[in-house]
Amino acid sequence: MKVGSTHFRTIWLAADGWRVEIIDQTRLPFAFETVALASEAEVARAILDMLVRGAPLIGATAGYGMALAMREDGSDGNLGAVYERLHATRPTAINLRWALDDMHVRLARRSPGERAAVAYARAAEIVEEDVEINRRIGLHGLALIRDIAAKKDGPVNVLTHCNAGWLATCDWGTATSPIYQAHDAGIPVHVWVDETRPRNQGGHLTAWELGHHGVPHTVIVDNAGGHLMQRGQVDICLTGTDRTTATGDVANKIGTYLKALAARDNGVPFYVCLPSPTIDWTLRDGVAEIPIEERRADEVTEVPGIAPDGKILRVRVVALGSPAANPAFDVTPAHLVTGLITERGIAEASEAGLLRLFPEREPV
Amino acid sequence: MKVGSTHFRTIWLAADGWRVEIIDQTRLPFAFETVALASEAEVARAILDMLVRGAPLIGATAGYGMALAMREDGSDGNLGAVYERLHATRPTAINLRWALDDMHVRLARRSPGERAAVAYARAAEIVEEDVEINRRIGLHGLALIRDIAAKKDGPVNVLTHCNAGWLATCDWGTATSPIYQAHDAGIPVHVWVDETRPRNQGGHLTAWELGHHGVPHTVIVDNAGGHLMQRGQVDICLTGTDRTTATGDVANKIGTYLKALAARDNGVPFYVCLPSPTIDWTLRDGVAEIPIEERRADEVTEVPGIAPDGKILRVRVVALGSPAANPAFDVTPAHLVTGLITERGIAEASEAGLLRLFPEREPV
Repeated sequence: MKVGSTHFRTIWLAADGWRVEIIDQTRLPFAFETVALASEAEVARAILDMLVRGAPLIGATAGYGMALAMREDGSDGNLGAVYERLHATRPTAINLRWALDDMHVRLARRSPGERAAVAYARAAEIVEEDVEINRRIGLHGLALIRDIAAKKDGPVNVLTHCNAGWLATCDWGTATSPIYQAHDAGIPVHVWVDETRPRNQGGHLTAWELGHHGVPHTVIVDNAGGHLMQRGQVDICLTGTDRTTATGDVANKIGTYLKALAARDNGVPFYVCLPSPTIDWTLRDGVAEIPIEERRADEVTEVPGIAPDGKILRVRVVALGSPAANPAFDVTPAHLVTGLITERGIAEASEAGLLRLFPEREPV
Repeated sequence: MKVGSTHFRTIWLAADGWRVEIIDQTRLPFAFETVALASEAEVARAILDMLVRGAPLIGATAGYGMALAMREDGSDGNLGAVYERLHATRPTAINLRWALDDMHVRLARRSPGERAAVAYARAAEIVEEDVEINRRIGLHGLALIRDIAAKKDGPVNVLTHCNAGWLATCDWGTATSPIYQAHDAGIPVHVWVDETRPRNQGGHLTAWELGHHGVPHTVIVDNAGGHLMQRGQVDICLTGTDRTTATGDVANKIGTYLKALAARDNGVPFYVCLPSPTIDWTLRDGVAEIPIEERRADEVTEVPGIAPDGKILRVRVVALGSPAANPAFDVTPAHLVTGLITERGIAEASEAGLLRLFPEREPV
């Protein structure tokens, strides 16, 4: 999407044709800096230090990490070692594993001399596939926004939580893709951006990317969404998901469940946008079965920000000595979800609904 | 309640017998400082600059402001002028108005020479009345906690939102009074403290006061409560309220409504603690009738905290250029409220329930 007047993706090949450029997302929203990665070690470091984040983008970056490694040494030994090293950067990231497996299978059957070229080509394909999935999610979501716009005056008010934006993918984002497509099509949209404590991905990243693309938006604290829905100021909720069960339960950033409850209480449609690989077909009960990562307490007790003198620093925002807990995700039961927007269309959040779109998953 | 090993109230007469001491709450939680107020002008400044906050404490402080003024000049002219000046400090604070009216009526019928002594005595009474109301709220709430403790192993897990603590009153607090009384009675309690964005009264004040009194507690982001309730980690929710309708709808800090929805969805009892003057007997529909204050956007975009070097400063936490909205309260409909804990006992959150406790309010 646009940063100023220039179109960016989150990952691209440098002008030299071999280095891989990314946006250093740890510097956002207070500085926009790109970094050229010239080795597998630099890729590993970028993933580990979260210069890149978001499942699809991590997968794509790892793909290019394989390519950079094969460029230096296409041997069987290096192929196996690189696979292990990159996988260890974020062992729970499902797209990372998927991309590495995909690359490894394809590269293992080629000769060492061919591997670099094959790896670069496949990494580029992974990026294009992600962009296309997100574009399609956006088209299906756009139809919903268009319907709402036809029935009201003024902008369509979308509420979103966390960052399921283009910064978390290669382009378009998931939850933001319908928003960008509506905006680009001239449909007036306005986005309520949940700040998304504790890591503030909404106030930092979603606000930044919507602002740079020119989409009208307003940042609110996570507490405010219910009130806005009560007052009729939200037309639709759009979020992403980290993992969705075969029955339509949705694990997403902590606090998503509270917004889904408020949406249900106020008759506001609540849609979740997801590439189909996010569906975990092995799970049937999200609350019982999806493990919730407990992250470090200092993400709650300390907040990064920019001081009046321009310095970026972390300040403690909790009484000294008080402990904090930091569950990172919660599960929204399927019955609170109006629909799941996938690249194939919109499914009812249920096993039957998902199987209608993905009949190949029907148990035999 | 206790700060270290010393028992404090939020307002008290200095050892000299005429100055009024308070805790400078703008310095909390990072510094504990008391201030002696020696004039009505200093009292007005303390209210205006929020050195004191919370409806009951503001009322009591204004009462002492009248006393300090009468000590200097007990004339009719000064009585009227002081009333106007103190009322102007926070014109929407209902307890401020109530305390000033109460003092004014009593002082106007005395001679100028008597007024200082009467004013000091009445201000002290206002404090004692508030302490007694909160103590009684706590006794009724304590019974609920005791019942839960009898049915489970381990501590009773209470979730609270914002600061309805002793710092907002003269002592005990409202929502915290049952907690302190349970703790003091040896019942194991643990409090989940909602951070309470945007002004962080939970992470700043509730955490501070619970910590200093020795009550086990854990700070969480406002997003986390629903997840904890899904996992059975919350036994009861206790909050305060700024205004409750005759039908039991509850206006309280933004985000309260979301917790009430989650409590209902998970079968967790949700109680609101309130001194009966908080009931607005003229209102019947909270969502439609209670005006919600929209506060300054910089309360959302900037956060105060303490830097690693010990300096207290504000940092911007939202992407530069992104606007923010800041509705300060929301309304929780009565049907989500398990009960209203008042100084007279626990009422069902309904007109009939409130009238059973307050029969003198029965329409004639």
